[in-house]
Amino acid sequence: MNDKIIIAVDAMGGENSPKKIVDGIELSLKESNENFFKIYGNKDKLNFLVNEKPEIKNYCEIIHCVNQIKDEESPLSAAKKNKSTSMWQSIESQNKGKSQITLSAGNTGALLILSRLILSMINGIEKPALAGLWPNKIGTNVVLDLGANIGCNDKDLIDFSSMGAALYKSLYPEDNPKIALLNVGLEEIKGHEEIKKAYQQLKESTKKNFDFHGYIEGNHIMDGNVNVIVTDGFTGNIALKTAEGTANFITKYLKENLNKGLLNKISLLFSYNVLKKFKEQLDPRKYNGAILLGLNGPVVKSHGSTDSRGLANSIKMCNKIVKGRLIEKIKKYLGN
Amino acid sequence: MNDKIIIAVDAMGGENSPKKIVDGIELSLKESNENFFKIYGNKDKLNFLVNEKPEIKNYCEIIHCVNQIKDEESPLSAAKKNKSTSMWQSIESQNKGKSQITLSAGNTGALLILSRLILSMINGIEKPALAGLWPNKIGTNVVLDLGANIGCNDKDLIDFSSMGAALYKSLYPEDNPKIALLNVGLEEIKGHEEIKKAYQQLKESTKKNFDFHGYIEGNHIMDGNVNVIVTDGFTGNIALKTAEGTANFITKYLKENLNKGLLNKISLLFSYNVLKKFKEQLDPRKYNGAILLGLNGPVVKSHGSTDSRGLANSIKMCNKIVKGRLIEKIKKYLGN
Repeated sequence: MNDKIIIAVDAMGGENSPKKIVDGIELSLKESNENFFKIYGNKDKLNFLVNEKPEIKNYCEIIHCVNQIKDEESPLSAAKKNKSTSMWQSIESQNKGKSQITLSAGNTGALLILSRLILSMINGIEKPALAGLWPNKIGTNVVLDLGANIGCNDKDLIDFSSMGAALYKSLYPEDNPKIALLNVGLEEIKGHEEIKKAYQQLKESTKKNFDFHGYIEGNHIMDGNVNVIVTDGFTGNIALKTAEGTANFITKYLKENLNKGLLNKISLLFSYNVLKKFKEQLDPRKYNGAILLGLNGPVVKSHGSTDSRGLANSIKMCNKIVKGRLIEKIKKYLGN
Repeated sequence: MNDKIIIAVDAMGGENSPKKIVDGIELSLKESNENFFKIYGNKDKLNFLVNEKPEIKNYCEIIHCVNQIKDEESPLSAAKKNKSTSMWQSIESQNKGKSQITLSAGNTGALLILSRLILSMINGIEKPALAGLWPNKIGTNVVLDLGANIGCNDKDLIDFSSMGAALYKSLYPEDNPKIALLNVGLEEIKGHEEIKKAYQQLKESTKKNFDFHGYIEGNHIMDGNVNVIVTDGFTGNIALKTAEGTANFITKYLKENLNKGLLNKISLLFSYNVLKKFKEQLDPRKYNGAILLGLNGPVVKSHGSTDSRGLANSIKMCNKIVKGRLIEKIKKYLGN
């Protein structure tokens, strides 16, 4: 067990949990046996599920928690439940040296607050950020902040740049982080004061561990010329969701209309492989998992509505983060 | 001529101008003869172009302007050129009663500044907004602000709601405006202070000329449940461009891959009609034209890189705006 990457899993959050969580663990173990899972949640439900899958038993330990945080619960109410919840205990297990990373498909606001309370912030970082993956023409972007903070000042944006670069390097060690600030134009005078100040400081800094590519506009996020896109949480959340909505609009339109009538159905047979690859490339499960950055320990948030495939993908992400020594890298990139 | 809608056209801005402008006017006149065009710009270039198209001559007047504003020029430099430019004169013609609306494919920042200087703001409006059209599942959204202002307070967002509703009603008189504020969540506690204050006031107001649907998230912009989406110019600009980028990413991918290999090419033959309709529905030229709101006169900004088709579409938009009495409607919706 010592050579395994130990993931603390909050099994009680998100749709169809804990069944989905156990199914995701099973799927992940079929593809790789590099993990040991500490599963936090209701022991009766979890034992029942795990007992049905004897092949995963040796790779799991169930830790009973009497309480859980509801998906719609306020962060304050979540924090008041204290140590009794599966979310709290799955985060706290890192502090006790029992796990290397925490994975939850539960309430995002609660996960942010509890992670901050339990793991505390990295020295010098004032705000945590939520980073996500987003496809581009040649690979994948890291985009942050996706909504951990509504307002950001210049220092936050600079910290997000360093942390995003460290995350990119952890996930894609063979590649170099290329950072841009998301803005409404490319000229230095564009945008609000905070972004202009961040731009100047990033441009002038000689101690960066990444290439700074200035500003990027929304229509170029997916071009692949940069791979880390930095913005405040309000803008980042809306940009990500708008992209999702646009992709859904197009794919639904095509799906509905290409299934109408015989000619279109014949066409689908011929273009099956292209459409299949296209569907895979835009499959949100492929990019499932947002990473909480700025804390003294790695925490991954799986989408609440994903399925076992999405969950298994965020387990893969957890492994890359642990092997890529994310927290050490962040501290190095921040110059701590 | 008196029964015609008179459009003042700045012919000198945008890619391939003034040729594109004259081609767009020609295309528009082929489809409808309800306009008379006052074309502002270099008379030698314009006479040459118009003389090639005798069928449009009776519907045009060329007004020579010695100067023009470059697409990359700063708004300040543009304003200093004063009355000598085609942009200035095309806007000013409204004040002199010579035209009913202004259309330009030129420099957006300059158009905003000059429009404000020449037409001045509607009483009580502090900031102009740039509104655009965006497809949704059942029709079209009006989205504003797309970048006229970086920062907005609660009053601005409320004014944008009224102005956006008035624009929607002018363009689609048979339909009713349904407004939502673009935010990072649907709950009342979500978002920054300005948006929360605007939400409360819009919710409580009993004098509105539109239905207020609360908040909307980025992934639901295209659902068609609301038709006027209100946000600050920073977020709106990034959301619109991100949607454009996502749509481009997907359509380019499909185009490139469906053109590879014999099987795919056969498939294209069978699905030709669906793909053609799809292409038309997402064609940016269909939605070409952003409307400057908050001024004492209507000004439409055509995309600088559009072609004659896009320009003819923004002429159609101008006609709807004039017939829909946009400025009167805005004043009514604002309660002025």
